[in-house]
Amino acid sequence: MTHVKIEAPRMGEPWLLTPGPLSTSFAVKEAMLRDWGSWDTDFRAMTAEVRARLVAMLGPGGASYECVPMQGSGSYCVESMLGTLIPRDGKALVLANGAYGLRAARSLAVMGRAFRVLDKGDYLPPRGAEVAAILDADPAVTHVVAIHCETSSGILNPLAEIAEATAAAGRRLLIDSMSAFGAVPVPPSEIAFDALVSSSNKCIEGVPGFGFMLCRREVLEAAAGNAHSLSLDAHAQWAEMEGSGQWRYTPPTHVVAAFLQALREHEAEGGVAARGARYAANRDRLVRGMRELGFETLLADAWLSPIIATFFCPADPAFAFPDFYDRLKARGFVLYPGKLTVVESFRIGTIGRLDGSVIDAVLSAIGETLADMGVVSAAPPQSALDERARFLEEVKA
Amino acid sequence: MTHVKIEAPRMGEPWLLTPGPLSTSFAVKEAMLRDWGSWDTDFRAMTAEVRARLVAMLGPGGASYECVPMQGSGSYCVESMLGTLIPRDGKALVLANGAYGLRAARSLAVMGRAFRVLDKGDYLPPRGAEVAAILDADPAVTHVVAIHCETSSGILNPLAEIAEATAAAGRRLLIDSMSAFGAVPVPPSEIAFDALVSSSNKCIEGVPGFGFMLCRREVLEAAAGNAHSLSLDAHAQWAEMEGSGQWRYTPPTHVVAAFLQALREHEAEGGVAARGARYAANRDRLVRGMRELGFETLLADAWLSPIIATFFCPADPAFAFPDFYDRLKARGFVLYPGKLTVVESFRIGTIGRLDGSVIDAVLSAIGETLADMGVVSAAPPQSALDERARFLEEVKA
Ligand SMILES: Cc1ncc(COP(=O)(O)O)c(C=O)c1O
Ligand SMILES: Cc1ncc(COP(=O)(O)O)c(C=O)c1O
Repeated sequence: MTHVKIEAPRMGEPWLLTPGPLSTSFAVKEAMLRDWGSWDTDFRAMTAEVRARLVAMLGPGGASYECVPMQGSGSYCVESMLGTLIPRDGKALVLANGAYGLRAARSLAVMGRAFRVLDKGDYLPPRGAEVAAILDADPAVTHVVAIHCETSSGILNPLAEIAEATAAAGRRLLIDSMSAFGAVPVPPSEIAFDALVSSSNKCIEGVPGFGFMLCRREVLEAAAGNAHSLSLDAHAQWAEMEGSGQWRYTPPTHVVAAFLQALREHEAEGGVAARGARYAANRDRLVRGMRELGFETLLADAWLSPIIATFFCPADPAFAFPDFYDRLKARGFVLYPGKLTVVESFRIGTIGRLDGSVIDAVLSAIGETLADMGVVSAAPPQSALDERARFLEEVKA
Repeated sequence: MTHVKIEAPRMGEPWLLTPGPLSTSFAVKEAMLRDWGSWDTDFRAMTAEVRARLVAMLGPGGASYECVPMQGSGSYCVESMLGTLIPRDGKALVLANGAYGLRAARSLAVMGRAFRVLDKGDYLPPRGAEVAAILDADPAVTHVVAIHCETSSGILNPLAEIAEATAAAGRRLLIDSMSAFGAVPVPPSEIAFDALVSSSNKCIEGVPGFGFMLCRREVLEAAAGNAHSLSLDAHAQWAEMEGSGQWRYTPPTHVVAAFLQALREHEAEGGVAARGARYAANRDRLVRGMRELGFETLLADAWLSPIIATFFCPADPAFAFPDFYDRLKARGFVLYPGKLTVVESFRIGTIGRLDGSVIDAVLSAIGETLADMGVVSAAPPQSALDERARFLEEVKA
């Protein structure tokens, strides 16, 4: 593990404490200062290196996986994985506890695939035993779809027990690891899964513009003709890349170049372990500091991901999130609004080119902003504490 | 019209004489040197400006159109247009004369929409009278799908007569103007169409990473629920942008920033007319110079687009395209392989940040390369001339 030199944004833009797009290194952005022909060998070599590095990032057991980069945002990649890998006569069990699980289910509904949802509400984790019970009761289910880190709340879902229940029932696991891959390990030797998807602008710290699937080779080979969409057919994309080394359609060349630089920086930092350690340290420092300021997290410590944390909005009538957001932006920090349906909240991301010094700076800025706004206490309303008690109760049960 | 200052690639990369990704201005790439939060007001303002500028680019009659940017490559946007605007019980007539027309048809096949194809082969233009006859004979057809410039051959299809035949039969026209929009005018006051799609990295000279649809507002309003795909649902994307000003899913922020700069440069150059004039001048100079070197174009002058031109490979046994390509790349110019099925050919793009001085330089490099390779004559084989005669014959008929 090497120490990462964090440099303030050079163009005067604010730090992004968001779950992507996020603050990236200047070298990542500088890699976009030239043009490439997408047909040319230079660019094909870049694509090959990106794919090889992503497979290597899987760690033990990764050698039987293929990498399929895919143009579009992360949601496109989720849809591509579901449409390509779940056969037309298959059925999915979607484990939802937030916006991204529900979006996966909506994708399936639009493409007309059979599915059912285990909806745990805003943030409760789907547990292995629940998955086992549903799979036992519903033999039609062929695939389980899990969200690794549900970015809406920041909860890190219990992937190991979900994978175990799925494998034990002889079903296949598809993972949306959008906001976790690259910082939270998913070693295939320990977690059985057919495929996962992630994107260029999360924990690998590239800029947004494409995503990728990592899929077991034999699963991909068997997936020809499943897809509901020509553009989102991951099998066809893979077949083209294996054949010609090219993307099927025009790739976002500059974004790919930036991502390659980001992958090299990821390795230089020390890979998944080091990246995860930096983010976890960011998270610990942030949560401690926010609690000192009087804020409360939605989640108990055991469920906090190193990616993003949800805080309740203070009950103090002097607090209003839009004003808070604007004032913090003026101080150089962009936060993220909340996504809970029951209580008011906001989120602070801990991924991207950030370290403890940036976290300390945002904590100071938040303290000063509360004072400027005349917020006397950052304590949440009773309803939020009730919400959290409900969470703790249900997780224990 | 202002004169554009063309600057050689600063990072030592070759000129791209390709139909996209293409050579872009350094300022376009420099616009990617900062990070943006996609939720933030600054970025929403950029999205709004991009959309307004693209609608304005339509010219007379454009006010009733909406702009829907869409993540992904151009093919994604074609699929999105077809899936969103052709109702599930509709039927398309696809006018094909090359790879992109056939790809549109394949999109429809995968999504399970009814369609028929008028396949004119490698490069013959679909004519208004043919369209009229098919529409007359097949009342089930609801939409005609036309390729504006079929980039495989470089042919500029006769959009005005196609639009006229379509409107006269009371059907709706959808246009793939990927490689033409921004340089070839498509004024809705003269050409009746429901929607067109294009992308960030063609005649507007941005970098690749997204595309956009320009669609009549009332057509878009009526298109809710048609789409076969959640990600590619252009109606849903539009509804989100109209509501919150945000993209539905994470946008390629840096690519959007580069595109906004490209749009400003497009306006500064003098808009569609000036851009088209520069490209036409490039094309004229290129074709003249290549003919002087002994090359022959596939198309007669009347059908040559200002976008890209196809040349036959010389019959001389000393000529081999891969070697020619590598030697020209070493001299700083990247060309494009051909896409004809019958005879060997290659293509040279005339779009991007190029002017006459670049064309002159590539012509010199080609002359020198032929000499280096020991190619005595650049004349094509008899089969190519027969092919061209067939083209001229059929176009006359
Ligand atoms: C877990 C998860 N899934 C899916 C997505 C969707 O990605 P995108 O916004 O790039 O479409 C996100 C985005 O934050 C995410 O965090
Ligand atoms: C006419 C036309 N249609 C569609 C496309 C496909 O665009 P993309 O390669 O960005 O998917 C192109 C690309 O060159 C094109 O020229």
